[in-house]
This record gives sequence, C-alpha cells and structure tokens, in this order.
Amino acid sequence: MKAFLDEDFLLQNDTAKKLYHTYAEKMPIIDYHNHLFVKEIYEDKTYDSITEVWLGGDHYKWRAMRSVGVPEERITGSAEAFDKFSTWAKTVPQLFGNPLYHWTALELKRYFEISTPLTEKNAKEMYAICNEKLQRKDFSVRELIAKMNVEILCTTDDPADSLEYHKKLKEEESRFKVLPTFRPEKAMAIGKDGYKEYVEKLSEVSDVAIIDFDSLLSALTKRLEYFCEVGCRITDHSLESGIYKPTDKDEVDKILKNRLSGGQISSEEEIKFKGYLLIALAKEYHRKGLVMQLHIGAMRNNATRMFVALGADAGFDSQDDFSYARELSALLNEADKEGKLPKTVLYCLNPKDTQMLASMMGNFQDGSCPGKIQLGPAWWFLDHKSGMEAQMQALMEYGVFGTFIGMLTDSRSFLSFSRHEYFRRILCNLVGTCVENGEYPWDETFLGEMIQNICYYNVKKYLDE
Amino acid sequence: MKAFLDEDFLLQNDTAKKLYHTYAEKMPIIDYHNHLFVKEIYEDKTYDSITEVWLGGDHYKWRAMRSVGVPEERITGSAEAFDKFSTWAKTVPQLFGNPLYHWTALELKRYFEISTPLTEKNAKEMYAICNEKLQRKDFSVRELIAKMNVEILCTTDDPADSLEYHKKLKEEESRFKVLPTFRPEKAMAIGKDGYKEYVEKLSEVSDVAIIDFDSLLSALTKRLEYFCEVGCRITDHSLESGIYKPTDKDEVDKILKNRLSGGQISSEEEIKFKGYLLIALAKEYHRKGLVMQLHIGAMRNNATRMFVALGADAGFDSQDDFSYARELSALLNEADKEGKLPKTVLYCLNPKDTQMLASMMGNFQDGSCPGKIQLGPAWWFLDHKSGMEAQMQALMEYGVFGTFIGMLTDSRSFLSFSRHEYFRRILCNLVGTCVENGEYPWDETFLGEMIQNICYYNVKKYLDE
Amino acid sequence: MKAFLDEDFLLQNDTAKKLYHTYAEKMPIIDYHNHLFVKEIYEDKTYDSITEVWLGGDHYKWRAMRSVGVPEERITGSAEAFDKFSTWAKTVPQLFGNPLYHWTALELKRYFEISTPLTEKNAKEMYAICNEKLQRKDFSVRELIAKMNVEILCTTDDPADSLEYHKKLKEEESRFKVLPTFRPEKAMAIGKDGYKEYVEKLSEVSDVAIIDFDSLLSALTKRLEYFCEVGCRITDHSLESGIYKPTDKDEVDKILKNRLSGGQISSEEEIKFKGYLLIALAKEYHRKGLVMQLHIGAMRNNATRMFVALGADAGFDSQDDFSYARELSALLNEADKEGKLPKTVLYCLNPKDTQMLASMMGNFQDGSCPGKIQLGPAWWFLDHKSGMEAQMQALMEYGVFGTFIGMLTDSRSFLSFSRHEYFRRILCNLVGTCVENGEYPWDETFLGEMIQNICYYNVKKYLDE
Repeated sequence: MKAFLDEDFLLQNDTAKKLYHTYAEKMPIIDYHNHLFVKEIYEDKTYDSITEVWLGGDHYKWRAMRSVGVPEERITGSAEAFDKFSTWAKTVPQLFGNPLYHWTALELKRYFEISTPLTEKNAKEMYAICNEKLQRKDFSVRELIAKMNVEILCTTDDPADSLEYHKKLKEEESRFKVLPTFRPEKAMAIGKDGYKEYVEKLSEVSDVAIIDFDSLLSALTKRLEYFCEVGCRITDHSLESGIYKPTDKDEVDKILKNRLSGGQISSEEEIKFKGYLLIALAKEYHRKGLVMQLHIGAMRNNATRMFVALGADAGFDSQDDFSYARELSALLNEADKEGKLPKTVLYCLNPKDTQMLASMMGNFQDGSCPGKIQLGPAWWFLDHKSGMEAQMQALMEYGVFGTFIGMLTDSRSFLSFSRHEYFRRILCNLVGTCVENGEYPWDETFLGEMIQNICYYNVKKYLDE
Repeated sequence: MKAFLDEDFLLQNDTAKKLYHTYAEKMPIIDYHNHLFVKEIYEDKTYDSITEVWLGGDHYKWRAMRSVGVPEERITGSAEAFDKFSTWAKTVPQLFGNPLYHWTALELKRYFEISTPLTEKNAKEMYAICNEKLQRKDFSVRELIAKMNVEILCTTDDPADSLEYHKKLKEEESRFKVLPTFRPEKAMAIGKDGYKEYVEKLSEVSDVAIIDFDSLLSALTKRLEYFCEVGCRITDHSLESGIYKPTDKDEVDKILKNRLSGGQISSEEEIKFKGYLLIALAKEYHRKGLVMQLHIGAMRNNATRMFVALGADAGFDSQDDFSYARELSALLNEADKEGKLPKTVLYCLNPKDTQMLASMMGNFQDGSCPGKIQLGPAWWFLDHKSGMEAQMQALMEYGVFGTFIGMLTDSRSFLSFSRHEYFRRILCNLVGTCVENGEYPWDETFLGEMIQNICYYNVKKYLDE
Repeated sequence: MKAFLDEDFLLQNDTAKKLYHTYAEKMPIIDYHNHLFVKEIYEDKTYDSITEVWLGGDHYKWRAMRSVGVPEERITGSAEAFDKFSTWAKTVPQLFGNPLYHWTALELKRYFEISTPLTEKNAKEMYAICNEKLQRKDFSVRELIAKMNVEILCTTDDPADSLEYHKKLKEEESRFKVLPTFRPEKAMAIGKDGYKEYVEKLSEVSDVAIIDFDSLLSALTKRLEYFCEVGCRITDHSLESGIYKPTDKDEVDKILKNRLSGGQISSEEEIKFKGYLLIALAKEYHRKGLVMQLHIGAMRNNATRMFVALGADAGFDSQDDFSYARELSALLNEADKEGKLPKTVLYCLNPKDTQMLASMMGNFQDGSCPGKIQLGPAWWFLDHKSGMEAQMQALMEYGVFGTFIGMLTDSRSFLSFSRHEYFRRILCNLVGTCVENGEYPWDETFLGEMIQNICYYNVKKYLDE
C-alpha cells in the first residue's frame, strides 16, 4: 500500500517519479487565470484565521458542507470561526475521492508543514497551529506567493477598473508579476439590470460618449489599450447558453440603442448583441496579440431561495448541457475568415463537450503559432484528478500534447497554488504510465523538455511574456 | 490469472478484499426500488422452471438473445421451456463483458450453489438441477428473500392500488418488510389514451370527485396518506423528454378540464401539466418526509412492429439524449424556493448526463440532512461494472461519497438480490484501489464505517426506517 | 519498462499476448470501408516519395502540423517534398498520445522494416530509405495490399460511377477482392449546388428519366443492381444534423420537382427529402441483403478561409453535437415496421452518443442474424486506443460482443492496413485483461474463436462473402 501524500503522491511508477522530481517539481508557476484580489496583494494582507482563508469565500467547500447536512448557520452564517472550522474538519474525511480532500491535505502540507490529515478530532490543534502561522510575517499574501515560486499571476478585471493596485504593486514588487485580465462581462450583459448604469460608468472612465455600437467598441478598445499598458496579456469571456446568431451592425446598433433608452431586449437580441460584440473584440485582441479565453457552459444561481439570501457565487451553480458546436464554430469563423482570430483558449464545463471542443480546435489552428487554439485545462467542476486526466487524454488524442499551456487555479484563495503541484503530479503520472506501458519510447531529454514546456515555457511564450 | 468468480471476485487488492469481507458482505439489504409483485411474495410462490424465472419477463435477456440472432419464437414465443433455456445457455458465453454474464453466474452460485459457467453443453444438466431446487420449499419467494438477508424492499405501485397484499404480508411476515412506493405515472399521463378512465378510477378509490386540478391533487394526496399508513417511504416518477415549462394553476386547470371532457392536449400542454403536478406532489412529499425518485431519460417502445406484437417493456427501449439541465433546475427550484423540495434521487439513463446531474445536486443541498439530493445509483442500461464505477466516481468528485444511499435492483426477478453483492464488490474495489494507490489514508475504522453506511445505514436513515 | 513497439506492443499481460499471437495476428484482413482509389490499384501504382504517400492527402497529419505552428506553405503549399517530410518528422515526437504517433511508427515498421522512431534528426536518412523502397516493384499498390494479407477491401463509390476499374481488376487480380460500396451522397444532397446537374448525370447513366421521386428511386435502384453485379455488398450514408422528419411521397415529390426546376429548398424540406429517400433505399438494401452504413455527426468545412483556399476534406471538420436519438429511432422504425430494415452499422463521431447508439441497437435486433444492428468501430476522431476501447466497452455492456464485425481503416492511404494490427492488439488486450482479472473464465477455445470472429469471420458472414 502506497502511503498517503508522501513525496511520490500520485506517481505510480518510476518514470512518473523521475519526470516529476527532475523536471516538473521546481518549475516556476504562471497562474494565468484566477480571481485573486490585487489590493490584498499590494497591501500584503495577513489573515486572522484559517477559517477566513478557507471558508470565507470558497463556495466549493460550502457546497460540500451543505451536502453532508450542515445548516447554513455554520457555513455562511453567524457561527463562531472555530465552529465553522471544526465543522469543515468533520466534513473532510467524508470527501473520499473529492478534490477538496487532496487540496486540503496539500495546503496543510505545503503551507503549514502539517502532514496529518484533518479530522474532527484534531480540529482544535490544527486550528491553533494554522492561526499562529497565519499571523507570522512570512504568511503574508506576498510571502505566500513568493514562497510558492509564482512568477506571474493574472487577476480578472473589469474594463472600467482603474488598475491602480496593479500599477502600484509593479513598482514595489520584483519577485513576481501580477497582470490584469480584460474581462468585459458587464459590457456584454445587455440583458441584465444595471446595464445602462454600467455603460455610463464605462463612458466616464474611457472618456468616450457611448451612444451606439461603434462608440461602445471605442470605449472598450481604449480601456483595452490601457490594460495593455499595465501589462495585460489575456482576456476572458463567459459564454452561457446561446453563443451566436448571425446579425449585422445595424441590428446590434438598434438593440443597443433600445436598451440604453430603457427598452427591453429579447433573449435572441441578447445573443446577437453579445456574439457581435465578442467578434469585434476578438479582432482587437488579435491585433494586439492577446489571448482570448472562452469559459463555456455555466448555469448560474439555480436556487432562488439561496440567491436571495447570499447572492451570486455562493455555490448554487452547475453545468449546463446545451448543444453549441455549430454556434461556436460560426462565432470563431467570423473572426477567422478575416484572419483575425486571436489565440483562443476553449474551456469546457460539461465533460460531454470535451471531445467536441478538442476536435473543434483543429478547425482553427492556422500554423501561426504552436497550439494557437487551446483546449483549456480542466475547469471548476472538472478540476480534479480524473477531470484533468480526461482533458489531457482528449488533448493528446485530438491535438498536439506538446503544445499544451497547462494549469491555472481559477481560485479566490492565496493558498491554492499547491494545485499546480497536484496538476504536475497527474501530468507526470499520465506521461510516465504511457512510457512504462511501451506506448512511447523513453527519451529523457525530449520528455523532460515536454514536461517543462507544459508546466511553464509554453504558457510563457503563449502570453509573450 | 485470477480465477473467475472466486471469493475475491472483482476485488483486485488486499484493501478491497478486507473492506468487502469484513464490512460489506454481511450487511442486510434494503432494496429501495424494484418491480417485484407483492402478491407473489404474499402467496409465497414457487416456480416450475428456471425458464419461467429467468426468461418469463426479463427483457434484458430477450434483447441479448435477439442480438445473437435468435428468432422470437424461442424468446417470447411458443417454444418449449427447455428450448428457451438452452438457447439462453448458448447465448451466455457470447456475452463477454456484459453484466448479464456476471448476473447469471452470480445467481447460479448464490441461489443454486452452481459454480460452473452455463454453456450450451451443460444446459440440460443445469436445467434439471435448477428446476429440482426451485420446487423445494426453501426456494419459495419468501425463503429466497429471507436467505438473501433482505430487510426491506420497496415495490412500485399505482396510487389507485389497494395495497391489500402489502397489508396482509405485514401481518404474516416478520423477517423482512415490503413497503409500497407511490408512483402516480398514470395520473401524470394526461396525453395517453385511457386517461379519463384512470381518473375515474382514482376518483372512486379516493372518494374524491375529480373535476379540476385541486380535486385531482386532493385525490392523490389522500391516496398518498393511505400509502403512508401502509408504510410508504418513497415515491417514483419517470421523466421523459420535456420536463418543465412555466405555467400557472389556471392554465393547468384548463388543460385538465379539456382533457377530461374528451379534448386533445398539445405536447406543450402535456409538459406544463406534468411539471405543475409534479411540483405540487413534491411539496406533499416534503411535508410527509418522503423521498422523491426521478428516473430521467428513457425513450420507450421504439420498434412499432414489436410493440404491436408484444406490448411495452419487451426490450425495445433505449436512452434518449435531449438536454434538460435548465428544465430540471427550474422544476426543482419551484419546490425549493418555498423550502419544500423533498429528499430527491436523480437517476440518469444516459451517461452523457451523469456529471451534469452530479453538479446539479449541489444546487439544492440545503443542509437539512446528509445527502438530501442523491445521484441515483447506476440504472438500467448503466447497471454494469463500468457504469457503477462511473456513477460512484462522479458522486465522489462532485458530491460527498460518504452520504451515498447505495444500490437497488430495479428488478422484476426474485433472483436479482445477488446484484447487491455485485455492487458491494465494485464499491469495495473502488475504495480499496484509491487507498492502495495512496490517494486516501488507510483508516480501517472510518473506511469500514463508510462502506457499511453506503451498503445499508445511509439508506435506512434516508428512508427514516 | 516495456520497450516501445516490440512484438508485444499494447499487450499488457500473458493472456492478451497469447490471444493476439495465436489467434489474431495471422487472420486475413477485410477492410470493409475505406476511401482508396481503385484505379490506382488496377494500375498498380508506385509512389515517388514518402511525402506523396503520407502528406499528399492525409488531413489528419495536416491538422497536426498546423497545430504545432507550421505554416500552410510547408503543409499543402509549394514547399519541396523533403521540406514537408522533415517538417512532419519534426512534428511526430510532439504527438505524445496521438494515434498518428503509433500509426507512423507501425507503418515504418510493417511496410519499411524501420524500428527507429522518426524524428527531425533522422528525417533525411528515413526519407532516403523509404523512397528507395517505394520505388521497388514489391512496393506497388497491389503488392502492398497482398503483403498485408488483405482478402477483401470495399471502396466508396458514387452510384453514377462506371465501376470500370473494379471490373477490370476482378479479371486480373486473384489475391484479393476490391468491392464497390454504394454511396448515394450526391443523390441525397438536394440542398447543394449542382444537384440538378448530378441528377441529369444519374439519369443518363441509369437510362431513367428522373422527373419525380419514383423515377429517382428507380434510377438509383437500377444503379444499385449494377453495383451488386460488380460485387457490392455494402452501402454508405453520411447523416449530418437533421436526420428525419415525418413526411409523405406527395410532399417529397413536390420538394424534388421544385428543386429540379431550379427552386430553393428550406432546411426542413431537405431533412424530409433525405430521410424519405434513405428509408426507401434502406428497404432496397434489405431486399438485396446488403449492409447499410450510417456515419453520423460530422460538421464539415468550419473554416471558410481555408475552405476557399483548399476545398473540402482538408482538415477543417469536427464533431457536431446535436441530439438525434428520437429522429434516428423514427427513421430506423420506418423501415423496420414493414420488416424491411437492412443490416445496419451505426457509426458515432461524438463519444457523448456512443452509449445512446449502443442502447439504440437493441431496439432493432430482430433475431434475423447475429448482430444485425452493429455499433460501428471507432471512427475518424475516435479512431485511437481509448476510442476503440470505449467503443468495445459500450458494445460489450449494451450488446453482444461476440457478434462484433471489427475494424476498418476508412483510409485514403495504402499504408494504413497496419491499423488492423493496432486494433487487434487493443482488442486482445481488452479481452485478455478481463480474463486476467477474473471477470471471465479462461477458455482458450472459446476466446480464440471469439477473437477470430471479431477479426475476420463475423464481417465475412455479415457481408455474405
């Protein structure tokens, strides 16, 4: 029986061990998509308690606690910090086979040097140790980032954001870079309440009077240029059911003007507007050499009762299951047919779509750079061992594995960087197992290089960093 | 090479063996969903021949025989009982990798103490042995149930059923309980011929004049109360393409009245009516603490020629592939937003939907009990080794494995209880393999308890039994 | 560590090795679906260079090269033959886990007796060796076919084709048969430009004046009869989004007449016409005992820019993801309800549909022959190790594995026959692993026979050859 979480955790054979320890383990981290707060990095925040770090905003853990029958009071409610922590501790052992089990153990080990699995019994002791450490100077946010060998991290930012803290941090911090990501979600969300107010804000920040599609695009492009000045290399869009319907500028102009003058928009009009704007922005991204990320298929805020109580991002989202091959193809083709499709990362939330997307990639690989179109690493609900394996398997079979840009955390927590280690172990195990089974020849130089490319160099080149 | 069907069948390592033999093997069975006939249990039926038990109504076996090229005459036709049996015996070895192969072997071993695989050559001998045993007193239906250590089994029943035999049996049989399941399929089936006649019958049995939606709901609620008096703890619904469309009581009232006065219903109206009624019933189930099962995605009676010849449930059904994430979410939300969603089991028939459903669960876990929303165990076409593994894998990754309510047979045969053994072996192997690979620490007390919970205690608590 | 590509390549245990080397390895090949050119076989073509064979038309390789960042110039453009080859050689090692890696290695080994993996470094040497051999008399097309132990191969042909070369070849070549496949794609493509011209050609060739549906069907039936005279045993259809909508002859007559007189067709009319014609043809296939292949779910020519530059079949196709269970069921049922559904092979392009199709098969197995409805072997994007394993796993679990008709290449290259070896190794490994794990008893006679049936005898019987 293999010991749990020893130095060869998840590495099931000698080739896997060799690849991981010699090539993957020490590579710097480029976490090219996450939801960290740059203000907290700039201010070099420390935390009062492990409850705050782990349970303050992590809706993955909240879902798990609700699933074992914990009342909301001890999850997002007013229970004491230790009560919440010990409730989590009691939940952990039941998470057999769940990534939260491994993530929790890895975070305890890498950040706090604790090798004992967390349980209800040792909760009090663990709580004390973690909290004591968290208040030490070397557990401040910047120290945690530096300690984990992070070289670049990309936050997620609204076009109207001043990026004030990105700029300030750049002046002060030399150990790692924090780059903004351009995510114009609010500018796309023409169907939502508050759209007009958002457009007014964008107008003001960009100093462009937004009265029609052209001026909206100008304003966004101006902000995009500003983002680039501050170091932006990557953009992000969430695509939910209804990705693309053919339209033209006259029609989207009418839709936008109607909305800005207080009118209502049909769901078809919303799809047309969003698709058209996305294509226009994609061409801008292409012109600037930026990467476009498309996160496809979330179905959000399913439980009205809890949405009223807690708002968005509280653990009530799940996978949608609509068909979108033709719409996505048409959308990408609109930019591609003018030769203006940017480097694009397609993230899949429902595993039924993984292979479809993997096959879609090939349609728009145009030889302009290695792996121009990427199958994004396993995301959100798929970000676990078998999910990562399935994503890599699909990429191998449909594309060119050697061009993969690898892992990101998508996290809101400063303790999540150990998930790069998790990914690297799974990667090396997958590759090592193939080699051990005689499915690929053992060529240490080549394979070591491939592993290092996937862990680090590929994404560095992909971002032109 | 591992011997076939030895005591460590399907157990590939020591941890798996330990978990199975020490913790799983001896647990009582709660078969919380099947299609057994309570009248046969009450009357303690014995069978004339293995042909009757195995081939009298098992459409899984019929499909297999048609697939190898056996004419209908020797499947459902007028061929002699032994001819049918020997045709089945000839089919069996060809079922390499099919669950029927394992089920057949397990049934021969556990019920008849036969370890030799069935083949055409030994068909005659096997036929004689089985038939001789079947006529013995200890092969009566009740003896078979008791021998297999069944504690509770839940049949599937129409609201208009008198439950006469459930009541009689309760008075006589103390070794196990047979509880009714409330399945108002005919009350939902507003689009089918005979709906009006069914409603009249329901009216009569419930002593409620059904003239509109409210009185229909009253009648059903009255029957539900009666079912509860007889021990009902669980309900069942089959959801086929078209799960939910928003509507209101006025509209469903009109639809129902139109139908009862002989009018035709559009397929949209049918969806509206069914969804609305299901939500209303769900709230009743919640009030009474009952479990709601949703079996989603069957596509029935695909071959008209055979439907005309043999009727329904004859082996001509398959998986549908429609998208339903948004409709199902809306349906569950309708009950949940009033805090009235009952404990719910989501059964998936098409494996493309497994992960979507596994992610959906989390949206409605509200902390009121462990595993309130369940991903139902592998069902029908998925009820085989890799199907069970995939269901458990999804549950582990998206939910909390420790809360799983485990296996049921969904069977029409009194010889199917050995499939609980099949499930338990696969469960222990999955858990044991994780531990052996160092993916979870070896903690015998905890893991032994988790296995016993999944085999028995979780469902017992879930049913409040 | 297992050596790469040794004699036990892909065979992970002794049972697998035994089954492969004793039973599978030596079986003749029946390649019942491919896109080879019979003219080249008749003329016994030889090739000038490995570039021509490998990179002249293989869009799988083109996609891979685009994915690593190779400009079109060196893929389909005017670069020198050696430049293209060395670019491919540089690409190969990066194809970790991609079937192209294995196919390339197997082709070098089986055809050229080269065991060294191809890399950029040895490209020059490899190029010379391959080209030298290709010009030898024993590397002509017919010699390659004979050397690979091919007994029958089925090309893909238009109903208007004269089959001249099939007939000539039959007179000359006794070592193997080349049979035509009836693929009336152009006769179905009523929505495409040039339809009228095609119908005129068909009219002429068949000597039937095509003026309505009946005469179209007569013309096609006449050609089908001619195909049968030349040895045709199998037909082929590609089904893309929109498979079936109920209609009648009056309506399809109107649709056809409208189109032939220059009118436009709606997409709904196109679906109706195609479905109706397919059903009519299916009944003809049934009458003649032919096999009907349905290739379902391609989404073609996604990149307009590249379609303009290179035309169809250039590597810009991918998996569609529409739902079609109900439409396909209705279509098959239309023929089946008159007892006129032919032997049918259902090929799946999107793995989300594999199980749905596997369950669909059973609906129309009518006992008239073993495995009347087949789950087609892993096709196109799925034609790799895990794709083959998944297809066989589904077939085992939903159907009767022993009736499987096995592998085909679907290839345009005379070097692809080694993919039958690839399949056979994977097949024997899958079966051997089951046996080694104690999931099926070791019965060498039975299992050896089953393997030989799947490799050869089943398809021979299925084709009545």
